[in-house]
Amino acid sequence: MKSGKVTVTPYGGLGEIGMNCMLIETESSAILIDCGLMFSELDHFGVEFVIPNFAHLLTKKDKIKAIFATHGHEDHIGAIPFALKAGIRVPIYASHFTSLMIREKLKDAGLDQAVPIRIMHSGAMIELGDLKVTTLSVNHSIIDAFALLIDTPLGKIVHTGDFKLDPSPFFGDILEWDAFKKAGDEGVLLLLSDSTNVERESHGLQDTRIQERMEELFDASRGLILISLFSSNVGRMANIFKLANKMGKKIALTGRSMEQNVRLAQERGAIHLDTRNVIGIEDVWQYDRKNVVILSTGCQGEPRSALNRIAHGEHAHVSLNEEDLVILSSSQIPGNEVAISKLTNQLFRQGAEVLYDAIEDVHTSGHATRPELKKMIEMVRPKFFIPIHGEYRHLVHHAKLAAETGVEESNVCVIQNGEIIEIDRDGLRIVDEITELRVLVESREGDEITRDLLRDRRRLAESGVVFCLLAREKGSGKVLTRPEVLAKGLVNDRLEAALLQDAQQVVAQVIQRYNKELRHGVIDPDFAENLRIELRRFFDRKIGRKPTVVPLVLDV
Amino acid sequence: MKSGKVTVTPYGGLGEIGMNCMLIETESSAILIDCGLMFSELDHFGVEFVIPNFAHLLTKKDKIKAIFATHGHEDHIGAIPFALKAGIRVPIYASHFTSLMIREKLKDAGLDQAVPIRIMHSGAMIELGDLKVTTLSVNHSIIDAFALLIDTPLGKIVHTGDFKLDPSPFFGDILEWDAFKKAGDEGVLLLLSDSTNVERESHGLQDTRIQERMEELFDASRGLILISLFSSNVGRMANIFKLANKMGKKIALTGRSMEQNVRLAQERGAIHLDTRNVIGIEDVWQYDRKNVVILSTGCQGEPRSALNRIAHGEHAHVSLNEEDLVILSSSQIPGNEVAISKLTNQLFRQGAEVLYDAIEDVHTSGHATRPELKKMIEMVRPKFFIPIHGEYRHLVHHAKLAAETGVEESNVCVIQNGEIIEIDRDGLRIVDEITELRVLVESREGDEITRDLLRDRRRLAESGVVFCLLAREKGSGKVLTRPEVLAKGLVNDRLEAALLQDAQQVVAQVIQRYNKELRHGVIDPDFAENLRIELRRFFDRKIGRKPTVVPLVLDV
Repeated sequence: MKSGKVTVTPYGGLGEIGMNCMLIETESSAILIDCGLMFSELDHFGVEFVIPNFAHLLTKKDKIKAIFATHGHEDHIGAIPFALKAGIRVPIYASHFTSLMIREKLKDAGLDQAVPIRIMHSGAMIELGDLKVTTLSVNHSIIDAFALLIDTPLGKIVHTGDFKLDPSPFFGDILEWDAFKKAGDEGVLLLLSDSTNVERESHGLQDTRIQERMEELFDASRGLILISLFSSNVGRMANIFKLANKMGKKIALTGRSMEQNVRLAQERGAIHLDTRNVIGIEDVWQYDRKNVVILSTGCQGEPRSALNRIAHGEHAHVSLNEEDLVILSSSQIPGNEVAISKLTNQLFRQGAEVLYDAIEDVHTSGHATRPELKKMIEMVRPKFFIPIHGEYRHLVHHAKLAAETGVEESNVCVIQNGEIIEIDRDGLRIVDEITELRVLVESREGDEITRDLLRDRRRLAESGVVFCLLAREKGSGKVLTRPEVLAKGLVNDRLEAALLQDAQQVVAQVIQRYNKELRHGVIDPDFAENLRIELRRFFDRKIGRKPTVVPLVLDV
Repeated sequence: MKSGKVTVTPYGGLGEIGMNCMLIETESSAILIDCGLMFSELDHFGVEFVIPNFAHLLTKKDKIKAIFATHGHEDHIGAIPFALKAGIRVPIYASHFTSLMIREKLKDAGLDQAVPIRIMHSGAMIELGDLKVTTLSVNHSIIDAFALLIDTPLGKIVHTGDFKLDPSPFFGDILEWDAFKKAGDEGVLLLLSDSTNVERESHGLQDTRIQERMEELFDASRGLILISLFSSNVGRMANIFKLANKMGKKIALTGRSMEQNVRLAQERGAIHLDTRNVIGIEDVWQYDRKNVVILSTGCQGEPRSALNRIAHGEHAHVSLNEEDLVILSSSQIPGNEVAISKLTNQLFRQGAEVLYDAIEDVHTSGHATRPELKKMIEMVRPKFFIPIHGEYRHLVHHAKLAAETGVEESNVCVIQNGEIIEIDRDGLRIVDEITELRVLVESREGDEITRDLLRDRRRLAESGVVFCLLAREKGSGKVLTRPEVLAKGLVNDRLEAALLQDAQQVVAQVIQRYNKELRHGVIDPDFAENLRIELRRFFDRKIGRKPTVVPLVLDV
């Protein structure tokens, strides 16, 4: 009987879509699987990213042998530079394309010499302490995506990464059930499997269907074709390049990440670019519109994207007309619905025909739906099952599916970020829980937005700030000036003057009280704080809100 | 041949879902159809509602005979109190239930004596100047919803309001195609029709299906049942009351609007309540859980709702366990997806079973899908067609549908808010366009959030505020104090002290320059502005952002 124990610590990605990061640990070794970030819905408060809090991970620093990146999406590799900066300096193992994306990311952060990046091919195996890690090809909305098979002294662990099966991917290997079945035959201790699409019953479209539909649309086009998709979806991009070549259309790229990823995909050999067919966006006007395809980022409604400028008729080089076709070849990341809807409506306003996945076969999800998830469980037949990569409800549904599919119910465990699971021969249990799991940051180089800072910004955003300014004589404490009360973001201009005049009366009363005490030789040390409290009360009474009030008492 | 002209002015609802408001006008008379508000996605900037700008409408004040409310949803009646406050004091015509909702709304605003509210029954007709308005029953997610048939000297106009066909509604009349067909037979000049669900091909579920499913779920329940739905969906609520009565379950209500609408529905005769079966939420604990149904608001993830407190395990009287069932019987209003998702996941975390429309037949939309929209056009056979109630892309798709369904293509017109359409015997054309169509307000009583105010709040939210404070001697202009630089919401505490110290150096330099000139007898009038500019430059250099900088120079 095998002995020892395995510990699984999810730092992110369980109970949310995004920021995947998980430590797998034996008594002597550990590997980090993925280290992703999440885009923040708090961008109006200056928060761009959410990254894992590396504090707990750093306590394990000496045990960690490597970071494995299952694929190149931001929610799997985006926080690697932050991890390196935090002091986790270990080799990174990844597929060819993933490694190129990580390389660029580290270059941008000035960290390209910090750690070695090793390329693994499908089926490759690496030994790290008492762990052996083998890569297994899966399909996803990015090329070169891997599942991981991890041999531990206690048994095998399968981590699916993000996966689906596509029997005809645009590029690369097909997920091979046999490899998973083989692991299953040998016995798998634990399956960690992608839960994103557990609520969907029907299989997603195959890439070939998208390809066919694109070909029909290219064929029927009477004007310019503008396709927006995730810049990491180089498989689909490669297909569009192929199609454009075949039909004698020129391609123009817009978006920095799009250009970068096309370059990386060429280096990887996934895109074969005939440079004669690629034109600059500024040269589009020189060509017959119906011979031009533009590939663009911005499919999530990002306000600063070229696509958004085109949608608003404000792009320097591209405008749309009624013969043009816009294809939004992507899904909606939760939280972006309103921005995407606005973008789509704006594109319609330019008169172009606009196709999107709600009405046309122009996109398919990168995640396995329920039948494939079931099949994964059936192939691997794990002793223990932990659903990963999903919101909490996805994890619950996936856990139920596993129990229905033959995994002993008591061996299925829904855990959330920060819940540390230990597995030994007696079973699995939550042994500890860590909190403070996420760090909000301003930008890629950016500083942390602490809870206090966010709270200050929230208050400023909701009701603005009021300053009350006056000077006192140093020593005597005598108030020298009439108080000034100023505001930013408080109420509209029409109301401000009268409101602040009333506020000044409140200040005058506080000063009167202060002066009275002063005449008796008493200087109230809480003078400024009293001003603050009285003003907040006043505004609450008058406008039903308590703005940030900053009393500024200058001793001259 | 009929003569004259008809003018249609959409103030809201065309190119957006929400804030429906449209003026229909002949040479001598005008009626306003609906006067709705929209919930704002800018709530973190203190904006609660968006309402129509009534400035243009006020220029027509003397011509307007009445406001017609097609049904009682906020996006159709929510801005009526604002319109009255703005000075539009005309009678309001509405169905029985709609009139009760408006009555409550005007009461809340202290405007219940301001204008008469008249109840119209289905098929009723009212003459106002040269306009005759007849009501036609339609089905929707609220009871007593109307379409309007408006006889003008130039011909008939059909305004569908929000509609669908449900052959078995929980309460009230069924949309009668015959009434629309009859208008069509007599000849309809213009059809204005609901576009919301034009992208959906399949018919929605019928109310009876929801009813059946609810009955099965009630039957199978092992614990408490908590149903969250829009408080205006009294038809569905009535059905739940009926079911609970039949099965001997007690009902508890939570949410002010839920309680109000149940009261109004009783007054209307739509809900027959056995008061012995209604219990207070604070008494739920006294009953066998499996005999209790809680009806609750909060289905859109509103953070302050009782449902959200229950989801977080923070409700004083109700907590969930594994035998309980939560039913989210509502759709997702665009923009609320993330909040609803968080709510749903939190409910799962309480261990309860949670059902929602993605996985169960527990909700159906209130809007006609494509086949019904087609049928409406076929019944009414209008000369002119204008799609209403939809985002821009919905309007475009609906216009195409009309052209495919026999309306002359040149007689189909997509217009947006503010585009004024004139129809006469020669055709229809856009004759004018008004801008500045929307007003952001803080709350129901609330003040306008102007563009400038919103901009100030946005800036404060993104990068905070910095004050630079110093005193000068009155007259001489001599700087008396060391400058103080303070900040709110700028950077985190760990960074702030050092950053502000550096900023103080910048201020010192500006003062040095100022003093130098002062020694030559020159007082720089732009001293404060220079401080502001230099500080903003400094912060841009140091942290890549330009906070709001407020120089405060006190002359003592």
